Amino acid sequence: MSIVRGTSEDMKQSCGSLHPLDKAAFPEPEPLCIFGTGDLGRSLGLRLLQSGYRVVYGSRRPHSCSPLPQGAEVMTHAQAAQSANLIFICVHREHYDFMKTMEHHLIGKVLVDLSNNLKKDIYPEANAVYLQRLLPEASVVKGLNTLSAWALQNGLLAGKQVYLCGESGEAKYAVSQMATKLGLTVLDKGSLSAARELEDFPLKLFPEWRLPLSIAVGITAFFFFYLFIRDVIYAYVEEKTEISYRIMVSLANKVFPIVALIMLSLCYLPGVIAAFFQLYRGTKYRRFPNWLDCWMLCRKQMGLVALGYAFLHAIYTFIIPIRYAFRHKFISEVVDEIKNNNITPFYFDNTKAWGADSFLSLGILGFFLFILLGLTSLPSVGGSLSWREFSFIQSKLGHLTLFICTAHGYIYGWNKFLLPSNYKWYTPPGYMLCLIVPSVVLVLKLLLLLPCVDRTLTRIRQGWERSQPKEEMVEIKATNL
Amino acid sequence: MSIVRGTSEDMKQSCGSLHPLDKAAFPEPEPLCIFGTGDLGRSLGLRLLQSGYRVVYGSRRPHSCSPLPQGAEVMTHAQAAQSANLIFICVHREHYDFMKTMEHHLIGKVLVDLSNNLKKDIYPEANAVYLQRLLPEASVVKGLNTLSAWALQNGLLAGKQVYLCGESGEAKYAVSQMATKLGLTVLDKGSLSAARELEDFPLKLFPEWRLPLSIAVGITAFFFFYLFIRDVIYAYVEEKTEISYRIMVSLANKVFPIVALIMLSLCYLPGVIAAFFQLYRGTKYRRFPNWLDCWMLCRKQMGLVALGYAFLHAIYTFIIPIRYAFRHKFISEVVDEIKNNNITPFYFDNTKAWGADSFLSLGILGFFLFILLGLTSLPSVGGSLSWREFSFIQSKLGHLTLFICTAHGYIYGWNKFLLPSNYKWYTPPGYMLCLIVPSVVLVLKLLLLLPCVDRTLTRIRQGWERSQPKEEMVEIKATNL
Amino acid sequence: MSIVRGTSEDMKQSCGSLHPLDKAAFPEPEPLCIFGTGDLGRSLGLRLLQSGYRVVYGSRRPHSCSPLPQGAEVMTHAQAAQSANLIFICVHREHYDFMKTMEHHLIGKVLVDLSNNLKKDIYPEANAVYLQRLLPEASVVKGLNTLSAWALQNGLLAGKQVYLCGESGEAKYAVSQMATKLGLTVLDKGSLSAARELEDFPLKLFPEWRLPLSIAVGITAFFFFYLFIRDVIYAYVEEKTEISYRIMVSLANKVFPIVALIMLSLCYLPGVIAAFFQLYRGTKYRRFPNWLDCWMLCRKQMGLVALGYAFLHAIYTFIIPIRYAFRHKFISEVVDEIKNNNITPFYFDNTKAWGADSFLSLGILGFFLFILLGLTSLPSVGGSLSWREFSFIQSKLGHLTLFICTAHGYIYGWNKFLLPSNYKWYTPPGYMLCLIVPSVVLVLKLLLLLPCVDRTLTRIRQGWERSQPKEEMVEIKATNL
Repeated sequence: MSIVRGTSEDMKQSCGSLHPLDKAAFPEPEPLCIFGTGDLGRSLGLRLLQSGYRVVYGSRRPHSCSPLPQGAEVMTHAQAAQSANLIFICVHREHYDFMKTMEHHLIGKVLVDLSNNLKKDIYPEANAVYLQRLLPEASVVKGLNTLSAWALQNGLLAGKQVYLCGESGEAKYAVSQMATKLGLTVLDKGSLSAARELEDFPLKLFPEWRLPLSIAVGITAFFFFYLFIRDVIYAYVEEKTEISYRIMVSLANKVFPIVALIMLSLCYLPGVIAAFFQLYRGTKYRRFPNWLDCWMLCRKQMGLVALGYAFLHAIYTFIIPIRYAFRHKFISEVVDEIKNNNITPFYFDNTKAWGADSFLSLGILGFFLFILLGLTSLPSVGGSLSWREFSFIQSKLGHLTLFICTAHGYIYGWNKFLLPSNYKWYTPPGYMLCLIVPSVVLVLKLLLLLPCVDRTLTRIRQGWERSQPKEEMVEIKATNL
Repeated sequence: MSIVRGTSEDMKQSCGSLHPLDKAAFPEPEPLCIFGTGDLGRSLGLRLLQSGYRVVYGSRRPHSCSPLPQGAEVMTHAQAAQSANLIFICVHREHYDFMKTMEHHLIGKVLVDLSNNLKKDIYPEANAVYLQRLLPEASVVKGLNTLSAWALQNGLLAGKQVYLCGESGEAKYAVSQMATKLGLTVLDKGSLSAARELEDFPLKLFPEWRLPLSIAVGITAFFFFYLFIRDVIYAYVEEKTEISYRIMVSLANKVFPIVALIMLSLCYLPGVIAAFFQLYRGTKYRRFPNWLDCWMLCRKQMGLVALGYAFLHAIYTFIIPIRYAFRHKFISEVVDEIKNNNITPFYFDNTKAWGADSFLSLGILGFFLFILLGLTSLPSVGGSLSWREFSFIQSKLGHLTLFICTAHGYIYGWNKFLLPSNYKWYTPPGYMLCLIVPSVVLVLKLLLLLPCVDRTLTRIRQGWERSQPKEEMVEIKATNL
Repeated sequence: MSIVRGTSEDMKQSCGSLHPLDKAAFPEPEPLCIFGTGDLGRSLGLRLLQSGYRVVYGSRRPHSCSPLPQGAEVMTHAQAAQSANLIFICVHREHYDFMKTMEHHLIGKVLVDLSNNLKKDIYPEANAVYLQRLLPEASVVKGLNTLSAWALQNGLLAGKQVYLCGESGEAKYAVSQMATKLGLTVLDKGSLSAARELEDFPLKLFPEWRLPLSIAVGITAFFFFYLFIRDVIYAYVEEKTEISYRIMVSLANKVFPIVALIMLSLCYLPGVIAAFFQLYRGTKYRRFPNWLDCWMLCRKQMGLVALGYAFLHAIYTFIIPIRYAFRHKFISEVVDEIKNNNITPFYFDNTKAWGADSFLSLGILGFFLFILLGLTSLPSVGGSLSWREFSFIQSKLGHLTLFICTAHGYIYGWNKFLLPSNYKWYTPPGYMLCLIVPSVVLVLKLLLLLPCVDRTLTRIRQGWERSQPKEEMVEIKATNL
């Protein structure tokens, strides 16, 4: 019996038969073997049975093991190994030794190592490498270890990408055939030396979110203390008033928009810097410095963190009027108005109304565009866009959002920029500080949009190079898509 | 001509030819036959043509049938049946009889039954079983019936999961090959006895949402009447004031957060109960009682229902200040303040400001985390997370959300718990009742986090068992992933 | 060496070998050739290497080209062409000529043309057609040109749909085999005459959003000017007050809900019109007029545009109480109240409270349902619904949303419809105009729900036809699904 028995029969029929199907010629389902009857083993078996395979479990005590999926057979490890050519190893690494004792049954078999470790770097070599060293005459394939028992059991596999690696191309081919039948998309990561990388995949915890989140937390902490000192401490020291209650809402609602705006501009800054690099170097064929590459790779996460802050800012704004402090201040205002006993109804400032309403409108519009940007970064939405649509939204709409949000910030401070009372203890207010980065990004972007600069940049991005030793080179580069 | 003609030619070339392609050796497209020229038949034909098949329709009056996709041929049923080996039955079950009359043309053919019924259980046996009984010498395969004409026409098939069942493995193989070419992921559900299950799939209407929605509606109704009696009826009877207008917003905005909080805690309760079951039994290898299994399976839906209620609560809160009643009360407050003619400006209570702002902040933070939880339950977002990331969000972040929302509830009532005026007609206010379940869940979860309990639980979940008759068993269990 | 060398070896093993795998029998990876070392060429090569192919680049100066993915070989064009049978052309159309000079190396090869143009219609014939004319003895396949270098590099291919076209079925088969291995879903668009269509795909910029957006912009502009004249100009002319500041928030918040409601009803109108067409014609087998087809195809986009407007309306409403104008008006109200010095506390109008709260509640509920509708139109959410669930949400829930939002509009104007002061300059207010279309849609839908009409419509949709020349026809039609 061979690993490809089931398939080979299908093939023969496909190749040879020109006569109609007759029931005698059933292709017998291919047998697969699973070592280990834990959660993963059972879920995998269930899935394989559902996809039309025959499943044989290898167990040390075939007669007393936990309940297995209906239709599966249980044998001793040796028997099970003999009955199939593809063997899934759903056993902890610490127990691999037992396979050494039955080495002769495993010669030439394909062993799929699905194991994961609980932590990184607890063993000197990857589990699969260890297994291959243990059984040099079997073909070890590392892979499918990113699938959880839960996903297997609930059939959430369709279109999921899994990785394989292993020394034997034939063995990887057999496993990838099986995986394709399960609805998975297989990616070959090369030889077993990639096994450690594969084993580290399930241990990842938002690696690409670390940098953006650290930056956001850093900026948040800085502005929180800055504003805490300027607002609460200053009021306590200079005006002897205790307004610490402001920390919860007022201060938070000052810090959140500041961080959102800075993070949004940090998300568009690397693109601008990269363009200037290309302009300066006159070619797109030299790699960017490492820090810029890292920065560019986490732009999406930065934008989403900024959106989170903007969302909090929006909600904090909505609930302002139901705050106790707001209502109190409002009532005091009215009472003062009455007490002063003005005869004419108090003055309505048209300019102030325009300013305040423009401020709010720009904020709302910016938030709306921001949410649109966020929606297109959902995998399923972004995936349905054409390349031109995606770049239109992320570049044009993104810069428009940044512009509107920056304008929102400027209007907030429009008549306060030159007010000396604003510079408590000689420090500028928070909204001024937060406008620096976005203003720089917008000015640089504007420079890049100047016709002469834009033309050069477009040519560079199409492969043109400024300083070319040979004329032919230009031609070659310009040739390629 | 055989069902696998097209494929077989591809195969032969693949197997044999080492010479470059020459145009004379075109693989002729495989012909497929469709009985029925309705919406489904036409859309399926269109799709098959687009995927490179030749499509032949079988029709009773080949010359006068409705417009068919370009490139398809129309013949009589008998002729069409002869020209292909795979026949799609896109005809209502009531009309299957005509196939009996042409039985000899269908011997050995694969009949794919795509039919659905309008209701459950209107026939004693599944359509496909009936068809197989009618034509015992054909190979009936039930399947693809979950595809709608609309999805077929608009090419929304990529990655979709479809089910097949049938007696003949070879027939199922042929159909699954075809389905894979259409971009579908095929799942074999076994023999024709599964046909009824497959025919019931498209009739499903949110089966997994029924229980959570019923519970939510039940809790909503209970608290609505409870609060209606306590607030509106009480005011009418004891204070002779008519405040029925409060039903629309005030009452709703009391009921919604209550239901949201209870549903959220019900979503984390079964996990805690399951952990205690495992601790008590000392093993993870015994099945949970049925009710717990059901409960655990609908946790996601419960959470999403809770999120819906929380969302409504948020919006109801945002519009409070533009309500007529709020503005009226506010004006009365000011007028009273003036009338009492206090000389000192009225007192600002710092503790009250802290309390109110903390209350709002916790609510906002809880809502924000809740929305994050909801986003990760979107299939496309959840699918892109690693297992560790998913469990981090659903477990750690989930319990944090529950904690924050519960704290939000406690602060709401912080100084009212001991106020006798709160216990109208000796009933506790709604927010007290709603804090019971989340508090219990949080206390139990806290118990599970105690180091000694946590260690035992982790060992149990890794396969360890407390009361083991034989030592070896431990070893076996601990072996498996 | 032939195009299917790698595969053919796999096949032979699959077909023949019944002996276990031995390492000597490695299937040598299939070599693929890429002309062009630009971004696309490099990303494609990287992906092919990861999927287990051998990649050979053809370059004019193999020794001095830009960095290529690790593991790829670089040769001259002629050498590279000889080493593989599948050649990817990642070169700008303007440079296709060089292939003419090496025509004899390309005889019988499959050339996959991945090129795109920068604009539509800049060349008289499609790039792929031009290439085929240039090299009549090669098999040109147009395709994969919708993949971006970026998506290739980041492995975002799983489940993506790509199109192929070409004259040679065999060549298309070879390309589609390769594409399937990359995780793509392939759709055959027929002969090379479809190449222009394929080349236009990546140039599309939201084609299906154009009509809905134009309609929305048109309605917005109309109502903006209408309300601008009625509110601002009227006040200026007749009452000599300058209230232009209202443009930013008040006016916007009148226009947005109007457009949202009209767009929502326009999204359900075509379905109703189609039903009346079918009722009038007595059959579903005649095509709808073209304008109705277009309209029905952009319903989803119309609904989403309406949701965008509704979202803006909601946020504009939330921030009303923090507007300067609102606070000013509020304070004036209080001051007036005090000045008039009423002895009894000012009157609380119960009916008004009921009306205002119902108005708000209906708005919130409508918005909530609207968001649910929007969520189900996310590709990943909609894809996980059964057909019955999807139609339940889009039809039942959709009409309910329309009904609630329309009721929201009616309550807004409940006691103002007959107020003469509302008809400034003899024009009706905006909310009256905007209620016309939704009311018509709801009345027509109600007519369709009458039992007698509903029964006829259901029969028509199941294939029944009213005026049938022959009895048999009825039967045939009713037969098909």
